[in-house]
Amino acid sequence: MKVYGHPGSTCTRKVLTTLAEKNHPFEFVTVDIMKGQGHSPEHLARQPWGQVPVLEEDDGWQMIESRAIIRHLDQTLPGASLTPSSPRERARMDEWMSIEQSNFTPGVMKILGQLMFARWRGEEPQMSIVEDGRTAVRKAVAVMERALADREYIAAGSFSLADICFMPYVEYLFMCGEGGLITEHPNTSAWWTRISERASWQKVRAKLQAD
Amino acid sequence: MKVYGHPGSTCTRKVLTTLAEKNHPFEFVTVDIMKGQGHSPEHLARQPWGQVPVLEEDDGWQMIESRAIIRHLDQTLPGASLTPSSPRERARMDEWMSIEQSNFTPGVMKILGQLMFARWRGEEPQMSIVEDGRTAVRKAVAVMERALADREYIAAGSFSLADICFMPYVEYLFMCGEGGLITEHPNTSAWWTRISERASWQKVRAKLQAD
Repeated sequence: MKVYGHPGSTCTRKVLTTLAEKNHPFEFVTVDIMKGQGHSPEHLARQPWGQVPVLEEDDGWQMIESRAIIRHLDQTLPGASLTPSSPRERARMDEWMSIEQSNFTPGVMKILGQLMFARWRGEEPQMSIVEDGRTAVRKAVAVMERALADREYIAAGSFSLADICFMPYVEYLFMCGEGGLITEHPNTSAWWTRISERASWQKVRAKLQAD
Repeated sequence: MKVYGHPGSTCTRKVLTTLAEKNHPFEFVTVDIMKGQGHSPEHLARQPWGQVPVLEEDDGWQMIESRAIIRHLDQTLPGASLTPSSPRERARMDEWMSIEQSNFTPGVMKILGQLMFARWRGEEPQMSIVEDGRTAVRKAVAVMERALADREYIAAGSFSLADICFMPYVEYLFMCGEGGLITEHPNTSAWWTRISERASWQKVRAKLQAD
């Protein structure tokens, strides 16, 4: 199979982490979204919004949307399941995948937009936006902290797709010097150490540094 | 089981539609988010962000996040499955649930924010925001139109959770006088007629009108 993506893209990294967890081989095709390749005719034919990643299976069948792709990979590839088998733990996984998207990541993106992307463009970060982002992240992490009081992973007793969904965003918080939003909460801090030490994440992190 | 929600809330309506499809009885507890009840201490204990809906099962177990709740209801309740059984059709369902959230609904919300919520507050709608919303919705509907060229429902040959996710937002487009964004595309228009005529949706629509 092929993954069209970019090593720095949060959504690409969820797919790469899932493939590393499954230890499944794939061809990585870089779509350099930083240089506008997302909007090339070839890529728009694969992804109408010009985003990454796109998964392509060996017979040419394609799909988009990272959270959907990782569900599909988990369902169809061999290896340890990344979805809890009990219905209520699975419900928690779906719930946390949704909380990540609705209530955690929007705050993180406000921070990254200013402390990473604005700086790349040579602009001064707008600290009022950063502060709004911090407020949203603090609220989400407070809820995570309570959830992680009685389990090792965000949704269940085992590592799941929900943990994977948080990883690229948490990593970027640290890269922006905002890791304190995570480390000031002991359960969430221990969770991050636990999941970021996994071989899968180390592999994805090394790929970003190599490219 | 109990559903804490509001009949006008798009996210509540996804859950009510799923329960109607399953023909499953439940108690509806109105949380009047229009009057600030979402932020009452009782509701914040159920939903830390003060949002609706919340699902509560008979033994008191609770969960939040509409897209996660409808997955859980479909997995655990008897009745016709709302998830395709083939892995690739299921992948399409997950993909369209994600496209709805990432690429369709943000545009719809820009339109509703001005043509519905701003008017409720007695403010003039900002038509530049409406136009941005229309542009985003047109782009998403163009992709839907192609998908619906070879199937009756958005993800598969059968009605699924992905169709349910779009319904409350499409309905509100029509209520704002923006139904032309849907009806100008023949496949999408026929799809909307097909799904909105379902008994489940008629029941949810009647509930909104009754309350």
